[in-house]
Amino acid sequence: MILRKRPSILGLFLVLRGSVIQVIWKQLLLVMAVALAVVWAHGALPQVVVALDFAPFGLIGIALSVFLSFRNGACYDRWWEARKLWGLMIQTARDMVRQTIVLEDTPERRQILMALVQFGHRAAKQLRGQPPADSADAALIEAGRSVSRLERDGRLTGTEALVLHESLARMAGALLGCERLAHTPVPFAYTLLLHRTAYLFCIMLPFGFVDELGWATPLAAGLVAYAFFGLDALADELEMPFSHNQNAMPLTTYATAMEIALRGALGDSDLPELPKPVNYLLT
Amino acid sequence: MILRKRPSILGLFLVLRGSVIQVIWKQLLLVMAVALAVVWAHGALPQVVVALDFAPFGLIGIALSVFLSFRNGACYDRWWEARKLWGLMIQTARDMVRQTIVLEDTPERRQILMALVQFGHRAAKQLRGQPPADSADAALIEAGRSVSRLERDGRLTGTEALVLHESLARMAGALLGCERLAHTPVPFAYTLLLHRTAYLFCIMLPFGFVDELGWATPLAAGLVAYAFFGLDALADELEMPFSHNQNAMPLTTYATAMEIALRGALGDSDLPELPKPVNYLLT
Amino acid sequence: MILRKRPSILGLFLVLRGSVIQVIWKQLLLVMAVALAVVWAHGALPQVVVALDFAPFGLIGIALSVFLSFRNGACYDRWWEARKLWGLMIQTARDMVRQTIVLEDTPERRQILMALVQFGHRAAKQLRGQPPADSADAALIEAGRSVSRLERDGRLTGTEALVLHESLARMAGALLGCERLAHTPVPFAYTLLLHRTAYLFCIMLPFGFVDELGWATPLAAGLVAYAFFGLDALADELEMPFSHNQNAMPLTTYATAMEIALRGALGDSDLPELPKPVNYLLT
Amino acid sequence: MILRKRPSILGLFLVLRGSVIQVIWKQLLLVMAVALAVVWAHGALPQVVVALDFAPFGLIGIALSVFLSFRNGACYDRWWEARKLWGLMIQTARDMVRQTIVLEDTPERRQILMALVQFGHRAAKQLRGQPPADSADAALIEAGRSVSRLERDGRLTGTEALVLHESLARMAGALLGCERLAHTPVPFAYTLLLHRTAYLFCIMLPFGFVDELGWATPLAAGLVAYAFFGLDALADELEMPFSHNQNAMPLTTYATAMEIALRGALGDSDLPELPKPVNYLLT
Amino acid sequence: MILRKRPSILGLFLVLRGSVIQVIWKQLLLVMAVALAVVWAHGALPQVVVALDFAPFGLIGIALSVFLSFRNGACYDRWWEARKLWGLMIQTARDMVRQTIVLEDTPERRQILMALVQFGHRAAKQLRGQPPADSADAALIEAGRSVSRLERDGRLTGTEALVLHESLARMAGALLGCERLAHTPVPFAYTLLLHRTAYLFCIMLPFGFVDELGWATPLAAGLVAYAFFGLDALADELEMPFSHNQNAMPLTTYATAMEIALRGALGDSDLPELPKPVNYLLT
Repeated sequence: MILRKRPSILGLFLVLRGSVIQVIWKQLLLVMAVALAVVWAHGALPQVVVALDFAPFGLIGIALSVFLSFRNGACYDRWWEARKLWGLMIQTARDMVRQTIVLEDTPERRQILMALVQFGHRAAKQLRGQPPADSADAALIEAGRSVSRLERDGRLTGTEALVLHESLARMAGALLGCERLAHTPVPFAYTLLLHRTAYLFCIMLPFGFVDELGWATPLAAGLVAYAFFGLDALADELEMPFSHNQNAMPLTTYATAMEIALRGALGDSDLPELPKPVNYLLT
Repeated sequence: MILRKRPSILGLFLVLRGSVIQVIWKQLLLVMAVALAVVWAHGALPQVVVALDFAPFGLIGIALSVFLSFRNGACYDRWWEARKLWGLMIQTARDMVRQTIVLEDTPERRQILMALVQFGHRAAKQLRGQPPADSADAALIEAGRSVSRLERDGRLTGTEALVLHESLARMAGALLGCERLAHTPVPFAYTLLLHRTAYLFCIMLPFGFVDELGWATPLAAGLVAYAFFGLDALADELEMPFSHNQNAMPLTTYATAMEIALRGALGDSDLPELPKPVNYLLT
Repeated sequence: MILRKRPSILGLFLVLRGSVIQVIWKQLLLVMAVALAVVWAHGALPQVVVALDFAPFGLIGIALSVFLSFRNGACYDRWWEARKLWGLMIQTARDMVRQTIVLEDTPERRQILMALVQFGHRAAKQLRGQPPADSADAALIEAGRSVSRLERDGRLTGTEALVLHESLARMAGALLGCERLAHTPVPFAYTLLLHRTAYLFCIMLPFGFVDELGWATPLAAGLVAYAFFGLDALADELEMPFSHNQNAMPLTTYATAMEIALRGALGDSDLPELPKPVNYLLT
Repeated sequence: MILRKRPSILGLFLVLRGSVIQVIWKQLLLVMAVALAVVWAHGALPQVVVALDFAPFGLIGIALSVFLSFRNGACYDRWWEARKLWGLMIQTARDMVRQTIVLEDTPERRQILMALVQFGHRAAKQLRGQPPADSADAALIEAGRSVSRLERDGRLTGTEALVLHESLARMAGALLGCERLAHTPVPFAYTLLLHRTAYLFCIMLPFGFVDELGWATPLAAGLVAYAFFGLDALADELEMPFSHNQNAMPLTTYATAMEIALRGALGDSDLPELPKPVNYLLT
Repeated sequence: MILRKRPSILGLFLVLRGSVIQVIWKQLLLVMAVALAVVWAHGALPQVVVALDFAPFGLIGIALSVFLSFRNGACYDRWWEARKLWGLMIQTARDMVRQTIVLEDTPERRQILMALVQFGHRAAKQLRGQPPADSADAALIEAGRSVSRLERDGRLTGTEALVLHESLARMAGALLGCERLAHTPVPFAYTLLLHRTAYLFCIMLPFGFVDELGWATPLAAGLVAYAFFGLDALADELEMPFSHNQNAMPLTTYATAMEIALRGALGDSDLPELPKPVNYLLT
């Protein structure tokens, strides 16, 4: 996740890090090159390279922007849901710190909370496609077993055990929600349809611009392509919030934050440090 | 469900599998043929086959794209709700593994969890319109009966039984939610209205393009028709997430995943294998 | 609710049943007649019946389509919420079958479940504006009284009674949600504003089309009017999901489904039959 | 809240009551007067009062309609949330009738339910900015105290008391949600920005229409102004659902409905009558 | 948060306080100056400073307004979620007043409620980036410890303790939700993309306006820039609801309201006063 201050007006045009331009510069150059070629060829051979009327492009472009906006909304919602689910995990971990306070300074509490520490790190790995030796789910099952044993031994009341079991279920549910996001992309046909239409549109656009804008065509085509390809590429990144692109969730940070909260509550002093953004990128 | 990597720029235009073009190619050809005929006829008999001004088409097209976008949003929400409901089923199954851990290695636990295995497979069949001999609901009632008996026998505390009953209710609720989706389409009149408007619009479009685009008319009309028919066809597929089209939910996979999680917890070793995408299609 | 298969491409234009055209054909004819009159009069008396430039119509039409789309979204959400609330009622009835299984074969169980059967039929009548002799709420109060008595008599544990009371509360809440929908229309001024704007726009449209489309004006104006009036009329129907129009909820079917589920669980054999669509219409 | 049937096509244009035209007629007249003046002046002094090209107005108008639509959505959501919160209050009151049935015919039940009656009327007053002598919250605290006393005296089980406390918490939460709506307007800068842009746009619009529409300019400008000012004014009304405008929530009716439900359950016979719409307006 | 009445029509154009114009006046002046320069230069050197056709600007502008609207919706949702979360905190505080009523006039109740007072003020500081000596979370842990001790001592029943623990968990969850909003901005690349496109568009716009609007160009460009920059700047402010801009949440007021409710319930008489808007601004 990119964390940086809003740049000043001038800086606005110089910022590269965190911009989607890093992803789409090839396509942008392509469109602008085509535009340049069209302007030149239309000037040289007006009979062969004909200019087209702009109006139809207006229709297609506006329709495309409506559809792009819809896909962007869906992808952004996925990204934000991913963020909420990890927020729920961290919150549940903190809840369990409070819910196990009656076990303060017992080895069982340490066991339960350390299982959650494991859970966090394993969940991060699993979601990034690097499955750890033991699954995150196994950590929760272990914790659940401890809770049941403590209740049978009369060291937790039925209510206290119930509350802890519910927290574990919430944790498991949050992870499953993340896996749902990780394994169910937006329907592939949507992506394909919008990609194709956007490409064809931007490649054809110079023919519609050339008569109206002349040598300003490459600039205008570039601006349109920047907005359309840019939004499309951004939606691609947000669609998969657990991948490794620059807008992905900083899972290492989240899992570490969980560890710090849990082990801090256990009184450990050798806590890991929270990752800091490197070159504005938090991982 | 189609699972495939984003293709490269060139590959983008060659991918067929997973594209909506497989569904709408006839309509596309029709529109392009009409466009070709219009261009030719307008050239040959300009007095008979008149060109129309484009502006009104702009209005109709943009309005249509706003309405299509609305229906797409509604259908996508249905699809995603279906995905969430199956996610909830899988999660509930995993929850019940944890919630029955006090019964570990008893025949009753096996009975309850195997009822859930049945539930998953039957639910998948029911939703696909192939009702199994016994209903999915019957499996849940059976499981509920076991839980009640265990509580009466004092082998489950009241709290433990309550938690299990709530899980069963959640399972039943998720299935009913799926049935709601399967049996309540988006109002038929919407579908009809948008289909008709889209068809009429695309057929009439060449008359509006011919004066402005000349021989580029078939290409432009094809592009518009691709976007409009494509989105319309996609919405049709997403509207019914439990049918057999290529964007439908991979229910076999989900039911098998449930079985693996449940029977794995029971220590069974002869687990079925998780289906793999065949030609990018997961069923 | 209209239930029918998507028609074939040709059939698409012949389907009447379930189409909104049954509701708006008068308005459509009016607009097309006006258009015809305008084209003729403009040809005959160009000085008196002047053509207007189309551009302003583009602006008004697009703005109108954005606003219509917003109202459609709101009405569709109401319709879908109504569907969800009835789904919740059916689910709660099924839950209560499971939750009363400890009372199997007792007269009290029959009493409770039969009260729910009454509830379903009365709720359907109330929502359709035909209040039954006894209110749906009275049936729930009766069921609640039975549950309390059973708990006091020690035949239900505190937990079992709690779960049943919660189900009753959910049932009551779902009905109240439906009544909220039935008695609180979308603000009347919205409806009025959009109706008026749509009418004025469609009546004035031929003046904007006549110069650009000539004798194609009635066709184009009819297409626009079909989309705009059609969406407006559909929103009207979806806004009131418990009325008697063809997109209304099939409450008789839902109440009967509830009865079948409940009385089936009681072992009754003289179950009513589930209504079937008559001429594609399910009531 | 305005409750009236959809008028007939002709009546559609005669309805005043419930129309937003009552709120914006001055602005409408202003815009039409400006338009008339512009048309006249442009005819008399074409060199001084110049006509502007329409195209830029198209852009501004469409952008404005997108933004207006966004604010309308936000305000409608507030209005509907207000409706839902009062629905929740009424539902909770009805729930508490059922939940206190074990106390039937005791003075304590009367005390609790009458506290809710007070709550309803006080909440309505508070939200309308007429704070009653005692706050609505005080009524809930009083009811909560009764419940706690009854539990301590053994007349309510722990579960029954818990359920009642949760109902009280839900009631308090619903009121607080209403207060949130009442005290947190949509950001003022939004309102200002859209008002200003809409005003400037509609005042400048005649200059863009005059060349294209001639003497039809006042009519067209009036239609645009009606749609834009009308939606803007409606959003203003929906934004504040507890004020005294004609789309505000009928709080007196809701509080009375609560009283009837509660006192009816207590067997009182001198129940107040439910307010009826006066001149289509329910308060 | 700005709290002021809707101004009159004339006042509408004079209001500065609370308007976004305070934030974007430099950019507005820049655009209008560029526009003025373009008009002048185009008149003086028509061969060098060429006018561009407007149509492409229409496309870009409309697409941009669709995208801006999407980002505005996302940012407004964040702002409203922040408001809801603080509403939940205040509600939970009030709930805990009611839930601790069995402890009335005991030092433990004072201890618990005063911990919540601390929580509120610390939460406000933390969210505004001024971390207090002790964290807000520590206050909740302290309160949780008291509740557990009271349960172990038999002064709270298991149910009462459970309800209090759940309230504490809700409080902690609300704060974590706020922290999520404070630390997870909308993806930076979105902001950058929209900023850049909006800037480039508004700077280039005069070239598209000059031929069509002449000397009205600066005015029209200013109006467009006002709407686009204004909405963009507003989204920036709403995106970060806990910062210090004028649309940020009035956390001091909320924390004080919590204190008044809590200490008022404890019978304290030296309550702080609720902040009042200063120059329409509530902090």
